Amino acid sequence: MSDKKPKKPQKLRARLPRGLEDRGPAAIAATRAMTDKIRAVYERYGFEPVETPAMEYTDALGKFLPDQDRPNEGVFSFQDDDEQWISLRYDLTAPLARYVAENFQNLALPYRSYRAGYVFRNEKPGPGRFRQFMQFDADTVGSASPAADAEMCMMAADTMEALGIPRGQYVVKVNNRKVLDGTLEGLSLGGDEHAQTRLTILRAIDKLDKFTELDVHLLLTIGRKDPSGDFTKGAGLIDEQAEKILSRLRRNSDTNEQTLDSIRGSADETATHQTGVQELEEIAKLLYSAGYKEDRIRIDPSVVRGLEYYTGPVYEVELLLETKDEKGRPVRFGSVGGGGRYDGLVSRFRGEPVPATGFSIGVSRLQAALTMLGKLDTRPQAGPVVVTVFGGDIAGYQKMVSDLRNAGIRAELYLGNPKHSLGQQMKYADKRHSPCAIIQGSDEKANGKVQIKDLIAGAGLTSIEDRTEYLKKQAEAQIEVGESDLVAEVRKILDKHDVKWG
Amino acid sequence: MSDKKPKKPQKLRARLPRGLEDRGPAAIAATRAMTDKIRAVYERYGFEPVETPAMEYTDALGKFLPDQDRPNEGVFSFQDDDEQWISLRYDLTAPLARYVAENFQNLALPYRSYRAGYVFRNEKPGPGRFRQFMQFDADTVGSASPAADAEMCMMAADTMEALGIPRGQYVVKVNNRKVLDGTLEGLSLGGDEHAQTRLTILRAIDKLDKFTELDVHLLLTIGRKDPSGDFTKGAGLIDEQAEKILSRLRRNSDTNEQTLDSIRGSADETATHQTGVQELEEIAKLLYSAGYKEDRIRIDPSVVRGLEYYTGPVYEVELLLETKDEKGRPVRFGSVGGGGRYDGLVSRFRGEPVPATGFSIGVSRLQAALTMLGKLDTRPQAGPVVVTVFGGDIAGYQKMVSDLRNAGIRAELYLGNPKHSLGQQMKYADKRHSPCAIIQGSDEKANGKVQIKDLIAGAGLTSIEDRTEYLKKQAEAQIEVGESDLVAEVRKILDKHDVKWG
Repeated sequence: MSDKKPKKPQKLRARLPRGLEDRGPAAIAATRAMTDKIRAVYERYGFEPVETPAMEYTDALGKFLPDQDRPNEGVFSFQDDDEQWISLRYDLTAPLARYVAENFQNLALPYRSYRAGYVFRNEKPGPGRFRQFMQFDADTVGSASPAADAEMCMMAADTMEALGIPRGQYVVKVNNRKVLDGTLEGLSLGGDEHAQTRLTILRAIDKLDKFTELDVHLLLTIGRKDPSGDFTKGAGLIDEQAEKILSRLRRNSDTNEQTLDSIRGSADETATHQTGVQELEEIAKLLYSAGYKEDRIRIDPSVVRGLEYYTGPVYEVELLLETKDEKGRPVRFGSVGGGGRYDGLVSRFRGEPVPATGFSIGVSRLQAALTMLGKLDTRPQAGPVVVTVFGGDIAGYQKMVSDLRNAGIRAELYLGNPKHSLGQQMKYADKRHSPCAIIQGSDEKANGKVQIKDLIAGAGLTSIEDRTEYLKKQAEAQIEVGESDLVAEVRKILDKHDVKWG
Repeated sequence: MSDKKPKKPQKLRARLPRGLEDRGPAAIAATRAMTDKIRAVYERYGFEPVETPAMEYTDALGKFLPDQDRPNEGVFSFQDDDEQWISLRYDLTAPLARYVAENFQNLALPYRSYRAGYVFRNEKPGPGRFRQFMQFDADTVGSASPAADAEMCMMAADTMEALGIPRGQYVVKVNNRKVLDGTLEGLSLGGDEHAQTRLTILRAIDKLDKFTELDVHLLLTIGRKDPSGDFTKGAGLIDEQAEKILSRLRRNSDTNEQTLDSIRGSADETATHQTGVQELEEIAKLLYSAGYKEDRIRIDPSVVRGLEYYTGPVYEVELLLETKDEKGRPVRFGSVGGGGRYDGLVSRFRGEPVPATGFSIGVSRLQAALTMLGKLDTRPQAGPVVVTVFGGDIAGYQKMVSDLRNAGIRAELYLGNPKHSLGQQMKYADKRHSPCAIIQGSDEKANGKVQIKDLIAGAGLTSIEDRTEYLKKQAEAQIEVGESDLVAEVRKILDKHDVKWG
């Protein structure tokens, strides 16, 4: 076609890709309050901050399968101009392992560090499942001692309480992968050739908090069809093997001592199993001497964590509080954080064993839970004092705003159309949750006066039924003062209502 | 080949892609201190926080050229599974425009907001040029008033002073694109058909702070060969046109009033030029009445900003402080922030005019400058109290650590190899900048005693020349106390040295 039509300007659609969200003042303030509290606990435990960028070489994240040219799924990736693949981090552990390996000689080992940041998952988003969300991690690299793991559990418990979750309404569960590994060895499922089966078993067990034991039994054996008809392949164990595994996960008691007694098992347990139990005993002893009882930290053989890379103790923080969903059914929040020992991750870079253990809080997830539970202050904070404007010459109003700001008072000039009526300007002030508004018409200006409208007192007027009282309060809610007294009089109103910012 | 060799495990290289950096405790603390101060100023001005995710649809960022299937250069991009292109944000303005357009009905307009966050540039990194860096932006959307622009300039000045830069060592320069646009119209360079020429002119003028006026003249006319031999094409103006433009950029004086007088020009200036001058006059008047003089905010016709999308007032914050580079040559920091009016960005989504103005601080760049100038505290903060360990039974040491932590004291158990000598453990404590270390050997343990080593006092010993004094101070630097007095005695030492955390 040769006829040139003038291009019609296309209107762009303003929307975000799925699984991403914008955040407003209340959510941002809540996140800051939460991360400040978490940070204070981690600092008290001697951890220091470190920050890595949002992207890494894909291979450093472990996201290349042996036979793939392109990064495997779950990560956002692009090729650099030298053709190397770069991915957005999907957790904060893999980047830390890279950081420690790169700076190994300069770090004081054991290296305790923490970091908060966004991670990115290229996955199908769903309700409460985002493709960008915040984690807050702590890791100790360079210590093989179970004391490092015990410390993580105590720190997790202290963090929950610092966030306002009362003792008894959360629990830190701790277990050891070696206990399960020992059981599997005993069932002749050890060795590299059974690695895939073990991973399937692990993921099946990890579903125990959502599925019935029968469902998990099916996942361990012949597979399971879910209500929608989708079939999940099983691990292929025979029923006796599955039952043996499941029976061992059930051995938790009211006290850590009893649980340890029951998982200790018979003398013919494998060496791996015994090592696992010994490490748990050591952890229990340290918890006990530091005063952390079963109401805070509990040994639970059913906790395994779904990730492949854990090599020893694993832990999980669970909220025990319940809430109701939109249909009134009780909802348990479940896991809001977890972690474990990953002795292999740093070694991949160093070619020598580097023991490490870490703990990660799902900040976005925990924030959603705390918000539903009413544990976070989500009231809008006080807005600015709004100086309304009349007529074209706004320089005098600008001066009032500057005077208020210079006195540390949050204030702004009405910047909408200066022809807007006082009513429209007051509507804006209400929408901003302003504590008071300043009004100066031409009469007041001529007399060097200014009106201050107390919007908090004004909002309370509707609840007054007595007419005399109403008129009295209404008069109090708008006062006229001299221009030079403006700052002092505004301050009085702010103090009266205890308005604070920041 | 049929012979199977066992795969040799390949050691991964631990390194970051070019142009990215890790950040340690001092840098992180400095950023937090800076952003807290910036936030306090923005809040005082009535701005409220908003946060958008790190990625957006590429077209929403304006990064598709009309004839391209792939996003053009400068951005990190990937295709979503529905084939739509997504990019990491390269600034905080384009995402804000998308946010405002999407939430237009629910926002209190004019909408004043701020946000800090990382932005990403897929560009060739260089010294001081990173591919991920932090910006801190403020924008007012929905106000066409020059008062909104004047407010940005005042806020920029207040922010610099809040960050510890004394008055006189920074300047906020303000100009108006319409003044230049009017000049170009007068040279018959208006209209869509000269858009590309105008952009070349803009970028040439934007180099005035780095290049000589002759170089810029060449860029405006026949083009310029740089010392390395690279040739940059010129805008193709004739010498008279270039000289007319340059002469107009030179018209700045000591006072804003004089500068305005000189740019006001003759009666035959274009309407665009006159509008630009009027807006600057309005801004000058507001600055004057709010008490911001030329020592803080100066009208400067040479400021144009390199970005295409500005439509009115533009501003730039410059540090006037000088420092020396590694060769002892004076270095001026130059621009650490800037912005301007961009009335077209939100309109792209809305199909109606939406005036907006904004200001962006290059946090990473400003932090580098403040660090070089010694304006940021980059001393390592005090490390934790380190409880050293002897022998296999560490439960008692763990209890001391927990007691200290429960009292709010930053403390940790030595988690390295428990067979490490006291010397090795003290070396670790020194590396961590610990204020004191706790020691309990078997003798002390038997007697219920514990040693506290004051590492700050200990570090001061080397400067003592008198032997008696040395021995006295040395004795003071290590004390033995009863186990039950540990927390109180550690607190005394911390107070003595004024050790604070957090």
